[in-house]
Amino acid sequence: MSKIPHRIYLTEDQMPKQWYNLRADMKELPDPMINPGTGKPATEEDLYPVFCKELAHQEMDNETRYVDIPEEIQEFYKMYRPSPLIRAYNLEKALGTPAKIYYKFEGNNTSGSHKLNSAVAQAYYAKEQGLKSLTTETGAGQWGTALSEACSFFGIPLTVYMVKVSFNQKPFRKAIIETFDAKVIASPSNTTNSGRKILEVDPNSGGSLGCAISEAVETAVTTPECRYVLGSVLNQVLLHQSIIGLESKIAMESINEYPDIVIGCAGGGSNLGGLIAPFMQDKLTGKANPRIVAVEPASCPSLTRGKYAYDFCDTGKITPMAKMYTLGCEFMPSANHAGGLRYHGMSPILSKLFHDGYMEAVSVEQTKVFEAAVFFAKHETILPAPESAHAIRTAIDEALKCKETGEEKTILFGLTGTGYFDMTAYNAYLDGSMSDYVPTDADLQKGFDALPKIPGIQE
Amino acid sequence: MSKIPHRIYLTEDQMPKQWYNLRADMKELPDPMINPGTGKPATEEDLYPVFCKELAHQEMDNETRYVDIPEEIQEFYKMYRPSPLIRAYNLEKALGTPAKIYYKFEGNNTSGSHKLNSAVAQAYYAKEQGLKSLTTETGAGQWGTALSEACSFFGIPLTVYMVKVSFNQKPFRKAIIETFDAKVIASPSNTTNSGRKILEVDPNSGGSLGCAISEAVETAVTTPECRYVLGSVLNQVLLHQSIIGLESKIAMESINEYPDIVIGCAGGGSNLGGLIAPFMQDKLTGKANPRIVAVEPASCPSLTRGKYAYDFCDTGKITPMAKMYTLGCEFMPSANHAGGLRYHGMSPILSKLFHDGYMEAVSVEQTKVFEAAVFFAKHETILPAPESAHAIRTAIDEALKCKETGEEKTILFGLTGTGYFDMTAYNAYLDGSMSDYVPTDADLQKGFDALPKIPGIQE
Repeated sequence: MSKIPHRIYLTEDQMPKQWYNLRADMKELPDPMINPGTGKPATEEDLYPVFCKELAHQEMDNETRYVDIPEEIQEFYKMYRPSPLIRAYNLEKALGTPAKIYYKFEGNNTSGSHKLNSAVAQAYYAKEQGLKSLTTETGAGQWGTALSEACSFFGIPLTVYMVKVSFNQKPFRKAIIETFDAKVIASPSNTTNSGRKILEVDPNSGGSLGCAISEAVETAVTTPECRYVLGSVLNQVLLHQSIIGLESKIAMESINEYPDIVIGCAGGGSNLGGLIAPFMQDKLTGKANPRIVAVEPASCPSLTRGKYAYDFCDTGKITPMAKMYTLGCEFMPSANHAGGLRYHGMSPILSKLFHDGYMEAVSVEQTKVFEAAVFFAKHETILPAPESAHAIRTAIDEALKCKETGEEKTILFGLTGTGYFDMTAYNAYLDGSMSDYVPTDADLQKGFDALPKIPGIQE
Repeated sequence: MSKIPHRIYLTEDQMPKQWYNLRADMKELPDPMINPGTGKPATEEDLYPVFCKELAHQEMDNETRYVDIPEEIQEFYKMYRPSPLIRAYNLEKALGTPAKIYYKFEGNNTSGSHKLNSAVAQAYYAKEQGLKSLTTETGAGQWGTALSEACSFFGIPLTVYMVKVSFNQKPFRKAIIETFDAKVIASPSNTTNSGRKILEVDPNSGGSLGCAISEAVETAVTTPECRYVLGSVLNQVLLHQSIIGLESKIAMESINEYPDIVIGCAGGGSNLGGLIAPFMQDKLTGKANPRIVAVEPASCPSLTRGKYAYDFCDTGKITPMAKMYTLGCEFMPSANHAGGLRYHGMSPILSKLFHDGYMEAVSVEQTKVFEAAVFFAKHETILPAPESAHAIRTAIDEALKCKETGEEKTILFGLTGTGYFDMTAYNAYLDGSMSDYVPTDADLQKGFDALPKIPGIQE
C-alpha cells in the first residue's frame, strides 16, 4: 500500500460547486428568530433592512439541501482554495500515538483564516444587489481582514468596527485592513448611539464583539443602501463555511479515510459548523456515527456552561433574538488571547444539535492551549492562531488517549488559521505572564439574569 | 482546450528528489574564494571551522550536476511543499494585459518565505555531523524564523544575531524566533569583538547584515562544536533553493508552458538563484533562451551600480573574500523597508552569470514597489513581503509592455514571501511618509574605495 501523502489538495474539478445546508437534514430545526419589536418569529422580510436579500433568504431557508455557489465566488475560491488536508505525521510521531491525525488548514490566505470563505460570498451578494457600502465588526481581526479583501476585490466600501482591546493590541491588523481600503473604527465609539451609551457608563471600556455588532448594525440600518455582514453565528455563514467540511470529506474519501472524531474550535461556530457539516449529515441520516467535538475557551464557555435560551446577538439589543447557548449578551468575557472565541453565544444550528445530543463540547484553559500551540508549531512548522489551538489541544488529548488504549483512531481537526498577528499572546505564554481566567458561577449568573423576557415564549 | 487551473500543485511523486547545481553547466566558473589569511584560493578544508563538512563540500563542488536530497530533508519538505505555481488570472485582468503571468509562491510556511528550503538542509547536515549549536544572522527576520523552525525540529540550539534596526522594528519576528527556542541578540552587540568595535565607533549603530554576519561567524569559530549558517549568497544556498525552480519547471511543463521571462527579486541571490536554476540551465545548454531578470532596490543596487570585484562577505572582514558585484562591505544601506534586500554584495554565481551576459538586472524605487504590492494584494489576495514586491513591480511593468505591443508573453516571477511582519512599511506607504532614497555616486565611491587589496589579484 502506498503511503498517504502529507498534503492532499483537490483538483479544481474536484472542488465543491455547491454549499451544503445542514438544516435540510436536521430532524428538529432550531427555534425561529424572534423580532424584538413584535415578539413574533422574524420573517425573511424583517431581515431586509439589515442583510441583503439573498443572504436574508439563506438565513431563513431551512429546506434547500444544496445551494449552488455562484461562478464568481467559485472563481474567487480558486485563488486560495482548495485548502490542504494535512496528515500530521510529525505530530503523531512526537506524541507516540497510534492515532492518525489529519487537519484541514484554512490559514493559507492573507486573512489568515477560514473567514474569507463567507466574506467572499457576502461581498458578492452585496455587489449583486447594487449596495453602496457594508459595515461589520471584528474581534481578533481575522474577519475584518477577510471582509476587507473581499470588498476591495468587488469594489464595495467597508467600515469595520474593531473591538477596542484588539484595536490597541493589534495595530498591524488595522494596517492590513486599511491596506484593503476599509475604514477601521475602534468600538465602542462616538459614531453610534450604542457606542455612546456604553462609553457613558464606562469611558474606558475595551469593548466586546457584542458591542461592536450593535454599532455596525446601527450604522448599516441608518445609512442608505448600506447593509451589515457578520462573520459567524448566522445560518448563512455556516452554509458558506460548509466548503471546509465538503472539501475535507472529498479529500479523506480519496485516501479511503473517514474520521472517528471531528474536532473544531468554537466561538460563534463558523468554522465548527463548516467543518462538521457533511459528517453531521452522515450522522443525521444514519450513514455514519463520528464523534463531533466542539472546543471552547474556559473563559467564555457558552456550550459547556451557558443556558439554552433566547438572547440578543449583540450587547446593544438591537438584533433579532436567537435561541442558542448563551452566557447572556451582557456577559463581558475577560481579556483573553483567543480573541475570535470571545462571543457570548453560539450558532443556533450548533446549539440545537448540541442540545439534541449530536455533538459534544469541552472547554480548555488558555495556558494549556498555548502549550499545545507551541508543541504543534515545533513539530508541524505551522504557527497556529490561538483560536485554532483550542482544537489542537483537544486533538492532542484524544491522540494521547489512543496512546493509552492502543486504539488507531482517525482524528480530523480544523486548523482555522495562523498566529502571525498574535505574537503578543505567544510572548505572554513564553515569558510566563499568561494566566487562566475561568468565570465563577456568580459571574455567569449575572449574564443569565439579564436574559430577555419574551411574553409567551421565555418568561 | 481546458482552462489552466489557478493553482498547480505537484504530487509528492512529482517532487524533485535532487537539487540542481548550476555551476556544473556554467561555461566559465565563478572565480574562487580567497582566504584572507593566505591571499590564496580557499580550500574546502579552509571552510571547516565555519561550515559543517558536507556544506563546505557543497560550497566548493563545481562538478556534481545533481545532488541527492537526503530522505529526512525530503520528508521535511513534504510538510510545506510543493509550493503552488499560481496563474495570476485576476492580476492579468486588472492590468488588461495579453501576457500570461505565473508566480511561484513560497510564502505558505511559518517562516513566511523561501528561506526554509535551505534552513532545513543546513540544520539537517549540522545534526548529521553531531554539532552542538549553530549561529546565524537575520535581517528582516525571515531567515532567522526559518532556521529556528528547522533547528527546533532537529533539536539543535541556535543563536540569531538580528540587525538592530529590525530587532527594534519587528518585535514579533523576535517573538516567533523565540517560540522556536532560538536565542535572539540585537546586532551590533557586546558579545563579540566585531560588535564591540562597531559600537565603539557608533554606540547607536542600527547594524547591518554584514555586521551581523561578522558577529555570528565570530561566535561560531570561537565556540566548540558550533558552526555558522547563512541564508543567502553562498553556492550551497543556491543549490538548496534550486527546488523552487525545479518545481516551477515541472509544474509549467505539466500545462505545456515555458516562460519567456523569469523575474526574481535579488538581495543576496538565494531566491533568484533558486528560481532561475533550471531555466538558466536551458540557456547555458542552448535548449531555450528565456530572459532572466534580477530586480533589486534602488537603495542597494549591487548588480546595477556595484563593482565586480573581490570583497568580504561581512563588514568585520573575517570571512573569505568572494568575487561578486558589490557596493563594498563598508557600504551601509539606507533604512529601507525591503530588509531582506539590504546586502552589499550578490551571490558569486549570479554575479558571474550577470557579468557574462546571461542575465539582466533592474533597480526599482521603494514607493513604486509598494504601489505594486498593494495593487497585487487587492487583485490576488496575497499580501506580499516588500522583498517579493520588487519582482511584482517588474512583472507588472513587463506585462504592461505586452499590453502596448500586444505580445502574449509568458511571465514567471518568484513570490518569495508574505508581508505580515512588514505592516510598519505598509503603514508608511499608505500614510504617504515613505520616501525613496537612492545613493549618490559619491556615496557609492566611498564603498568602492574601501574594497580589499589582494596582491597579484586585486591591486
